[in-house]
Amino acid sequence: MAKEVKLVRYRTSPFSLREELALELKGVPYDCLDLEDVPDKNAVFLEYNPIYKKIPVLVHKGKYVAESLIILEYIEDTWGAYPLLPKDPYERACVRHLANFIDDKCIPTFRKAFWGDGDMQKTSMEQSKEYLSILQKELKNKKFFGGNYIGFLDIAAAYIALWVGVLQEVAGVNLFNREDHPILWKWSQEFLNSKVAKKILPEREKLVAFFNGRKEIMKDSIKTVI
Amino acid sequence: MAKEVKLVRYRTSPFSLREELALELKGVPYDCLDLEDVPDKNAVFLEYNPIYKKIPVLVHKGKYVAESLIILEYIEDTWGAYPLLPKDPYERACVRHLANFIDDKCIPTFRKAFWGDGDMQKTSMEQSKEYLSILQKELKNKKFFGGNYIGFLDIAAAYIALWVGVLQEVAGVNLFNREDHPILWKWSQEFLNSKVAKKILPEREKLVAFFNGRKEIMKDSIKTVI
Repeated sequence: MAKEVKLVRYRTSPFSLREELALELKGVPYDCLDLEDVPDKNAVFLEYNPIYKKIPVLVHKGKYVAESLIILEYIEDTWGAYPLLPKDPYERACVRHLANFIDDKCIPTFRKAFWGDGDMQKTSMEQSKEYLSILQKELKNKKFFGGNYIGFLDIAAAYIALWVGVLQEVAGVNLFNREDHPILWKWSQEFLNSKVAKKILPEREKLVAFFNGRKEIMKDSIKTVI
Repeated sequence: MAKEVKLVRYRTSPFSLREELALELKGVPYDCLDLEDVPDKNAVFLEYNPIYKKIPVLVHKGKYVAESLIILEYIEDTWGAYPLLPKDPYERACVRHLANFIDDKCIPTFRKAFWGDGDMQKTSMEQSKEYLSILQKELKNKKFFGGNYIGFLDIAAAYIALWVGVLQEVAGVNLFNREDHPILWKWSQEFLNSKVAKKILPEREKLVAFFNGRKEIMKDSIKTVI
């Protein structure tokens, strides 16, 4: 029987995986519509997310919610079990701020560090390492950004725990490592070894193979962004 | 006596004004630190918002919250009077989605329609009008995006009610008018005539004079964005 929640996703996307981690933590069953298997992707976007034409989209009770961080807020607002956001308004604001920081600053800069060349690559690499330091500082002595448990910001940062390692291997650069960012590195290992990450995240080797096949597309995509 | 809340702002910024509208609606007294009057702006950013180096910043009980939409969420989470977000999780997600849409899609595209030239200006103008249609559709038969009362999305859209009219006058283009978007136009008039807007928003003529003095800076800023 079809489940009440459906996620429109790419199996390899760090953004789609955010929703899966959140749904799993809250114990919400869901089906997936894998966009890799859909011949006419435009038709899907037209139906589910005409403004941004992006995945993930969460379908719940026939209604569509788009943008991965907004979907996380929706999941948090809808299912009370396992709260993802802290109760304190200031702490909530810090979490939202750093989640936006990952999307608006870290990911675009990391992409240039992975796939750019020359001065742009060098500058982006330095900037990226500074960004990792900002995130590391937030961890303080906590096991997870959420404290003793995986929370909203850990989920938003899953990209750093898994995808950054994969992409730097494929791109042949060294952005994130134990020596430069020991506390953030420790967090990434705790996160990857958590029950929910082991169950939900794609296998590292499959991601490496997938992105190895897309190196040229990635390099080209950087050129159009600048 | 200094108030418990302080807003670091520019007096002419549509982003700073969002927080002022929200604080006023909730009846929260606040002081302002006007960045126009501060000689060393970098020192202020270093103290309050080192990641983004942008205003507005809300200072409350010695803690700093940055990014205008995140500050709105903070204000909503902190002061219960006059709820800005709907209670229903799906409606909340729609409001958040469209508020992000205004910041991520509308404002950058409008800027190109105001200050760009040639094909870029023409394409941006068409795109901008489509974006206004998307927002207009959301209003349906409501007086405000928030229903009978000004809510989160009305506040986020204050830029469209006031600044767009000012900027198109200064730039000499015709983006937003009664004929093309009658429902959104009616909303803008209702909004500008509301008690809170009349009290909080800057005078139109002062904004026109301010932006008239910055035309060349605006045109240059578009060139560095592309």
